[in-house]
Order: sequence, then structure tokens, then C-alpha cells
Amino acid sequence: MRTFVIVGHKATTSPNFSLEDIPGTSGRLDILCRAATAAFVISHGIRKDASVYLVLLGGEAPKTILLHGESLRHLNPDERTTAALLKKALALPATERWAMSTSGITVRLGGLPELLEDLKEADLVYLKEDGPDIRGMEGISSAGKTVFILGDHTGMTEEEEELMGRAGARTASLGERSLHADHCIVILNWMLDSNAFMPG
Amino acid sequence: MRTFVIVGHKATTSPNFSLEDIPGTSGRLDILCRAATAAFVISHGIRKDASVYLVLLGGEAPKTILLHGESLRHLNPDERTTAALLKKALALPATERWAMSTSGITVRLGGLPELLEDLKEADLVYLKEDGPDIRGMEGISSAGKTVFILGDHTGMTEEEEELMGRAGARTASLGERSLHADHCIVILNWMLDSNAFMPG
Repeated sequence: MRTFVIVGHKATTSPNFSLEDIPGTSGRLDILCRAATAAFVISHGIRKDASVYLVLLGGEAPKTILLHGESLRHLNPDERTTAALLKKALALPATERWAMSTSGITVRLGGLPELLEDLKEADLVYLKEDGPDIRGMEGISSAGKTVFILGDHTGMTEEEEELMGRAGARTASLGERSLHADHCIVILNWMLDSNAFMPG
Repeated sequence: MRTFVIVGHKATTSPNFSLEDIPGTSGRLDILCRAATAAFVISHGIRKDASVYLVLLGGEAPKTILLHGESLRHLNPDERTTAALLKKALALPATERWAMSTSGITVRLGGLPELLEDLKEADLVYLKEDGPDIRGMEGISSAGKTVFILGDHTGMTEEEEELMGRAGARTASLGERSLHADHCIVILNWMLDSNAFMPG
């Protein structure tokens, strides 16, 4: 398994955005779309052992969308198709329980605190430029319980960092250069594929 | 410098495709858009030391678009913005000489043979799943003259492989799992950033 959490601080929780201008009308949901495709798509298929939580904080009440590789359908590599799938999920009446939208995509009310509560058995790794280099870190493999947490273009807030710290998250960096979340996910997937991490 | 060549075997050479359905109307120009953004975008900026050649073979006469990081303007991380820039370049009357479209983007007639002729001083590395692992290869660095060549979703043809072989290209692989061209570029950029290759 490989699990990724991406927090979209301005990402809309409403389906009323335009597929003709995703960056301009959705609170940069395009960032989360690219993160999702980075997590799943490989040539001629998708990664069944991947899961992605998209935490959307740009509405009145936060929502979280879960994409689950094992049952995920209709995900193509292009941004617009992914945005259309998220639009469908956001059109569902959300409650505090996961509700299924299309195959492999569920949605509920709740933000980062609720998600961290759910993930309390996981080994949380928060990706941040100034953390220690992930290449020296132990215990990360696709066989493990690692959950990678990434911010959007605004990074993470101090409150969120405190929350993750209390949840036991380790901080890790992919290097000094600040990369987009989707690119970080591509690199993490490749490192997991290559067993590039230190044994735990 | 870091230079990437991506060959789009069905990619349109005409501007008459729809930004509302890029994968369906452009011969999968979306693949080349994502490859271009993968090469250039980093958080809050673009890589000035990157160049990308997009070889478009899906028209009557092949065209090549060159994106040059040093002078590139208006490139955003989203797919549609990149497609709109390529559309503008394809609307120019192309000849065998490079003509400027927008800042940092030029276009001309010609396909892979013409491009390889231009790149004959370069150290060509052709990315292919069954090649030797790139992590053991020497002489690759952003200080060098390496040009990475990648195929689209259809791979490269036998004729193209022969052509590259005659041009002295080395074959290299990022691992057994077959990845999309844009994801390969993300990983190569990161390896170059990290000086992860063997010294030459």
C-alpha cells in the first residue's frame, strides 16, 4: 500500500466550478487533480495499491475525498477527467460518513483533524522542504503503513503542523528545491517501486 | 542544462483542436503538455536551465516545437494553459527555420531525423523500459550535454530506434515499471537536482 494525503487550503467543496477554467474557478483544485493522477497512473493502467485523500478546505465546511486504487474506475491521465470525477463527488450530499460517488471514490464532511484521527495507526510522513532528507529515513516501504502528507501551493499552516506533530508525524524532505505536490508523489512512487528507502 | 525530447506519434500539427477535449481532439497532445510542464515547473517558478523539444508526427508534415526555459513566459502548471500555448505556436505558418510564437516558444517543420541532426554534439539517452538501469550510467549531469529522448503512449517505432542508434544514443531505463513520459521527466529532473548519477 501507498497512501497520500494532499491538503488543498482553498480547494472548493462545491461542484459549481468550471471544467473550462479549473485553476481559476475551483480554488486550485487542479493541484489536487494532478496529485491524484500522479499517485495512480502508470502506463496502461493504474496503481491498485495506492490510495489518495484530498482534503478540501475552501468551503464553509471541510470535505475529504478518498480515491482508492483497488476499485477506482474512469481515471485518465488528463486533468479535466479527474476534475470531472471530483465534481461528481462534490455534488453528493456529504455527511460525516463516507458516501460512494463513482467506483473507488468516496466523500465525507471533515478535514485534517478527522483524517488524522482515522490514520492514527499509520506511520505519518509530512513532506517539507526543510525536513531531514527522506533518503536517510528508515522504515518506509510499500509493505508498510506509511502515509505521506503534502501541502498545496501555500504549504501547511502552523496549526496544521502542530496537529501533525501531535499525531506523531515525521518530517521529511525530497531535497532543497521546492517541488509541486504531484511531482513529489511521482518521485515517492518511484522510490517505493525501486525499494530506494532504508530498511526499517 | 537539461534537455528533453518527447515524440508524439499522433500529435496534431494543426491548431484546430479543442481546449475542452485535448486528449480526444489533438492526437494526445495532452501527453506532450504534461511532459512540458514536468520539465519546467517548480514551486513558484520555472526551471531556466531546461529545454524541451516536442516532436509532432500526427499531421501531413511533421513539426517540432522548442520550449526554452531561459526565455519561457506564461507557462502555468495546468494542462490547458500549456495546450493554449502550443495551439498558438501551431497557428504560425511553419517553415524549416525556427519561428518564434510566444516568448521562449519556437516552431518549425521537421521531425526526429532533422532534430537528431541538430543534436549531433549531444549525449543522447533514450529512455526505454528494457534498457540498462540509468542509475548505473556514467556522465549524466546538468552540467553536461545529455539529451533525454522519450516516446509517448505508443513508445518509439523500430525505425526511430534505428535512427537513434545510428545517432549514437544510449538506452537507459528508470526501472521495470512502465511510466508515463511526464513522470519519467519529473524523476530525471529530481535525479539531476540531487546529483544522483554516476560521475562520468
